[in-house]
Amino acid sequence: MKKKKSSKIKYIAYVASSIDGRISKGSLISPDWTSNEDWNFFQKSLAKMNAVVVGHNTYKVSKNHLKWRNSIVLSSKANHEKRASAVIFVNPQKTDLKKFIERKKYKKVAILGGGQVYDFCLRNKMLDELFLTIEPYVFTTGVPMFSGALFQKYKFSLQSIKRLNTKGTILLRYKNES
Amino acid sequence: MKKKKSSKIKYIAYVASSIDGRISKGSLISPDWTSNEDWNFFQKSLAKMNAVVVGHNTYKVSKNHLKWRNSIVLSSKANHEKRASAVIFVNPQKTDLKKFIERKKYKKVAILGGGQVYDFCLRNKMLDELFLTIEPYVFTTGVPMFSGALFQKYKFSLQSIKRLNTKGTILLRYKNES
Repeated sequence: MKKKKSSKIKYIAYVASSIDGRISKGSLISPDWTSNEDWNFFQKSLAKMNAVVVGHNTYKVSKNHLKWRNSIVLSSKANHEKRASAVIFVNPQKTDLKKFIERKKYKKVAILGGGQVYDFCLRNKMLDELFLTIEPYVFTTGVPMFSGALFQKYKFSLQSIKRLNTKGTILLRYKNES
Repeated sequence: MKKKKSSKIKYIAYVASSIDGRISKGSLISPDWTSNEDWNFFQKSLAKMNAVVVGHNTYKVSKNHLKWRNSIVLSSKANHEKRASAVIFVNPQKTDLKKFIERKKYKKVAILGGGQVYDFCLRNKMLDELFLTIEPYVFTTGVPMFSGALFQKYKFSLQSIKRLNTKGTILLRYKNES
């Protein structure tokens, strides 16, 4: 059987976490502990993207930054596809997200979390690269980077390491090899 | 009031985790995904330590490696202090662990996990340095690095970054600044 040629869309996840892999205190709380250097990197990166994918909670707490972007908000409550300005609400149980993005002709899509969305995209082969900023804190609890149900060993390869500032924020770039 | 001079004992935590901050699949499963390079670094480091502190589950899965070391096994089931060869079982609810280690005259103590022990030591100012090896995998679930109950912002500073091999295992060294 001929294998369908893989789509050329590039899915790039951006994550900011603590040393212990936590991305926020709670799913409706916007992180106030990320560095200016990470913010600058993040904004510069987003400028090159055609669209972003976020979960409903992440959208709620970052609405002001996202409402002018092509934003795809994943929500199990969205009844199909519901549009508000540049923002569209999609229920991935009812809409094939990959095909939806293909139809939109987006080429570079940023995956911005939270943990359920990172997990969904990784499981569905919509996570080609991962930019991980590690801020120099330990939180001991909070929302984990990926909220998976099944333990799996997704293999990545490290592309680069960069120190973003003197206090010890680092930026790791990984390629998904799984 | 005069502040008690802080003890000179150095507590150093060693952690191996996935990119997403998971230290194992389950608390009774020994990680089979850590690199040889991390193992070599870890063994070399342990050789310089006077004692190790581990949780009961971690001890169970790494008994063969620990039984000849001065091992302090934290266990809420230990009725007080129970000795077996170089290994001693301590219930930190009944024994003041810090004082116990002082009495032993240990100067360098390795904290080896799991997540509850890392959290206990961090909360009780028994975690001065943190060596974190990040292996290039994402697991999406599993045991988190720290199993805390309360979200806190423990500040660390990055001392060094080292690539341990070509596949992308990195070793981060942090100092606790909190």
